[in-house]
Amino acid sequence: MAKQKRGKQSFIPEIQPVITAWASVAGKKEGEGPLGKTFDVVCQDSYFGQKTWEQGEKRLQQLALETLVKKAGLKETQLDLVYSGDLLNQCIGSSFSLRNTGIPHLGLYGACSTMAESLLLAAMTVGGGYGDRVVAMTSSHFASSERQYRFPLGYGGQRTPTAQWTVTGSGAALVCAEGKGPVIESCTVGTVQDLGIMDANNMGAAMAPAAFNTIRAHFRDLGSAPEDYDLIVTGDLGQMGKEMLLELARLEGLSLGGRLTDCGTLVFDNTVQDVHAGGSGCGCSAITLCGDLLNKLESGKLKRILFCGTGALLSPTSTQQGLPIPGVCHAVSILSGRN
Amino acid sequence: MAKQKRGKQSFIPEIQPVITAWASVAGKKEGEGPLGKTFDVVCQDSYFGQKTWEQGEKRLQQLALETLVKKAGLKETQLDLVYSGDLLNQCIGSSFSLRNTGIPHLGLYGACSTMAESLLLAAMTVGGGYGDRVVAMTSSHFASSERQYRFPLGYGGQRTPTAQWTVTGSGAALVCAEGKGPVIESCTVGTVQDLGIMDANNMGAAMAPAAFNTIRAHFRDLGSAPEDYDLIVTGDLGQMGKEMLLELARLEGLSLGGRLTDCGTLVFDNTVQDVHAGGSGCGCSAITLCGDLLNKLESGKLKRILFCGTGALLSPTSTQQGLPIPGVCHAVSILSGRN
Repeated sequence: MAKQKRGKQSFIPEIQPVITAWASVAGKKEGEGPLGKTFDVVCQDSYFGQKTWEQGEKRLQQLALETLVKKAGLKETQLDLVYSGDLLNQCIGSSFSLRNTGIPHLGLYGACSTMAESLLLAAMTVGGGYGDRVVAMTSSHFASSERQYRFPLGYGGQRTPTAQWTVTGSGAALVCAEGKGPVIESCTVGTVQDLGIMDANNMGAAMAPAAFNTIRAHFRDLGSAPEDYDLIVTGDLGQMGKEMLLELARLEGLSLGGRLTDCGTLVFDNTVQDVHAGGSGCGCSAITLCGDLLNKLESGKLKRILFCGTGALLSPTSTQQGLPIPGVCHAVSILSGRN
Repeated sequence: MAKQKRGKQSFIPEIQPVITAWASVAGKKEGEGPLGKTFDVVCQDSYFGQKTWEQGEKRLQQLALETLVKKAGLKETQLDLVYSGDLLNQCIGSSFSLRNTGIPHLGLYGACSTMAESLLLAAMTVGGGYGDRVVAMTSSHFASSERQYRFPLGYGGQRTPTAQWTVTGSGAALVCAEGKGPVIESCTVGTVQDLGIMDANNMGAAMAPAAFNTIRAHFRDLGSAPEDYDLIVTGDLGQMGKEMLLELARLEGLSLGGRLTDCGTLVFDNTVQDVHAGGSGCGCSAITLCGDLLNKLESGKLKRILFCGTGALLSPTSTQQGLPIPGVCHAVSILSGRN
């Protein structure tokens, strides 16, 4: 078997990739939420100084990357590679943000699992000796998502209780072969799960089976168990999806209770922010990881987490054609830099 | 510097990845073209037995993967990972084709560069010891692309002379740590180039600068030159873009003449098939590589090629908002299995 592979879906990088810096940029509503103080930049302008929301999302990623290299004390030209993707059709948030920067770029599509997917690939790249400084980045924007996936905002459509609120935000993490910071210990690649969920306003339900499958595969491949982790963090199932994941795990005798949390339930305070089932979007798990979670891993408040990015792989076209919603989840185990 | 990295944008895998099998599935028009006999499957039905073109594209990828594992004498459960992506919004061709197969999957978005991007990542995965059997796959479909990017087909819109014809096809390559077949020698990751091309009907012009940048970076990083290759194959600049690339190279004193060809000019016979500037779409370079090119590398007719996947990173939204078209190109150097 390949030397860095473990079990069916997982790998342990030979050179331990270190997350030496991280940056998060968030919108106004996210800045008012429980994690507001953990973001590097909070913008009051939903256009981020641009003419359109889509270009605003591009600017979000530019700001995240600029903040990241500044925090790391680097120049953009010192980066070996950027893995990034977003929810916009043809991922224009990512590709437009990197225009003429001269930074090598590989584009991803993993829906809301993109923060975990990009982190996993950055770990693979650094761990295999293909690069010394690799960035994992993603974004989402409430307004660009609403008009692309749902209704024009001016239409004022009612939201269902299971609907989630797309986070306006971008997160970026710098994965290096050397340096200080939280360490990527192992990764698990997900499979596409489709249990026939048809409701595009209940994406937590569509993603929960994928989350369960990947978490189970991770424990199986690495010989670990929930109690080995301080936190198992999905991103983003929301309140409904999180409950479904707990139930799926309970039915298979896997107790996640007490350790499971979800970025969609952390990023907003639903008692005052009225986001229904919680936050969502690539940016949701990105700003939660590249703020609160990595800060706590750096300080030693968290010793070890399993970061599980979950994505609903639907499109408006697939929904209009009456098709169910496949889900995917990729998991990254991260250790505190301090022992 | 990272041990497998070469120069700014390139790498040489430590374990030489071998392309042990490849498969191509094409539509009727492609089957009637100059490469018709090199495809494993040619379907006369543009729906591929499905109810919609988008689902037909999903079926295209399923057929390519089924044909690939059959040719390789494997079962799908023996695959370690599939890298795939397509042009459909949210890449539903790729994710729906892998539903409930149990195969680990990482989704990509690189527009028409996806065959090269997926092959490069498969080489990185196998070359770093993360997997033994990794698939690189992509697809495109003329009818699903036309209605998503341009006009409903029934509208009968006129095509400009610079327009390309999206190939209906899917190609898949199996990259292994052991076995016989063409070998992936080195890879070069592209940067996002934007020279301000605004015409969404002239994507060859938008991609040519990216192709030139990546080809130049490849020669610089690896210390090689055009004469070291039997063929430098872009995919897919079309006739106009190919001429622009030759001109860009000439201005910088790099002679590609005689060695440069383009998948968009190989896949159709423009004298009888009326495709204007040539073929395009992720499937164009995919079926040209996973048919004619790999067949010739296997037999020794070609000794060494530089396969350069080129992508135009636009979306209908970015075009409607008056933005230019960024391009990207990734290059993979492939050696004949026979010496």
